[in-house]
Amino acid sequence: MKSYRKELWFESRQRRELINITAQVEACLQESGVREGLLLCNAMHITASVFINDDESGLHQDIEKWLERLAPEKPYSQYAHNGFEDNADAHLKRTVMGREAVVAITAGRLDFGPWEKIFYGEFDGGGRKRVLVKIIGE
Amino acid sequence: MKSYRKELWFESRQRRELINITAQVEACLQESGVREGLLLCNAMHITASVFINDDESGLHQDIEKWLERLAPEKPYSQYAHNGFEDNADAHLKRTVMGREAVVAITAGRLDFGPWEKIFYGEFDGGGRKRVLVKIIGE
Amino acid sequence: MKSYRKELWFESRQRRELINITAQVEACLQESGVREGLLLCNAMHITASVFINDDESGLHQDIEKWLERLAPEKPYSQYAHNGFEDNADAHLKRTVMGREAVVAITAGRLDFGPWEKIFYGEFDGGGRKRVLVKIIGE
Repeated sequence: MKSYRKELWFESRQRRELINITAQVEACLQESGVREGLLLCNAMHITASVFINDDESGLHQDIEKWLERLAPEKPYSQYAHNGFEDNADAHLKRTVMGREAVVAITAGRLDFGPWEKIFYGEFDGGGRKRVLVKIIGE
Repeated sequence: MKSYRKELWFESRQRRELINITAQVEACLQESGVREGLLLCNAMHITASVFINDDESGLHQDIEKWLERLAPEKPYSQYAHNGFEDNADAHLKRTVMGREAVVAITAGRLDFGPWEKIFYGEFDGGGRKRVLVKIIGE
Repeated sequence: MKSYRKELWFESRQRRELINITAQVEACLQESGVREGLLLCNAMHITASVFINDDESGLHQDIEKWLERLAPEKPYSQYAHNGFEDNADAHLKRTVMGREAVVAITAGRLDFGPWEKIFYGEFDGGGRKRVLVKIIGE
């Protein structure tokens, strides 16, 4: 069994953004040399997500608006978590979008349907943030 | 390490439906010959889900009504994604329900609690749709 | 390839509670002897979750309040599932929070960011409940 680990780092400039990281994850897979196995990709922060969906800007606007409806950022005082922090909404948004994606590896490729792309979802941005890629297989 | 891959295909007739696919996934496991390992089952479409819950028709009605409240199909014009398409709600519903399930394999069986069943959740139906089953182990 | 399986049991006293199970999951990992691999941790009940977030009591209050807004417990009659049961809301809350977490194992440790902790989320408590830990790797 082979195993491979890499952290992908991102410079986050906005409070919320969705970044297509499919190419970086594929590069990890090539580097790993794994042909058959499983790939785990997860946010290492608890106010961020890794998820799989469509790379379409209209949809990303819809997700932003929808998450703000389900778990609004403001007023900050609505959340018990927001004493010294103001990011309770980001913890909830990350919960909706999910922490991780597990992807099949077949014949050395991410075994995806035609529209599947991997995104890093940042909900409490500012500074350097990271994603873990772990691969096991042969 | 053994690995196994299969696509399960479904003919979808309604916009939204929940299909119990546990028996097909178990058949994959038997075919794989894997006794100890992990099984990944994921939708290959980004407007569909694979999730684990109870096979109870009342609950499935509740899920339909609940998802329509969280991410209504209509009016289509409420979503930026709905220019040439009308399925933005399906992308959001899939997000709530999840893309994938990862299941333990123990002694050649899906290692489930008493009520766990695997479902394919279709939210933008019509035509042939598919689910990926990937198994690794020994 | 090594594999390891253990059920963790919890005595649940309230209808809803969030229990930090990170130490028990780490103990499983030590017992397994696996140094590189993947760990699956999932609820074996369909009205409960395993998820990763922050161990902060204000946030846990926010999650309780938020889930009650997204999928209220009462009135019980609002759900078709609630004929002989009263736990439809718990099935929906579990859906939001997720069934499982998959965690990378690196150098014999849970490969976590600084604030990641594993929780068991109970939404229909009372009695003994269990979580499955499955580890594969080397």
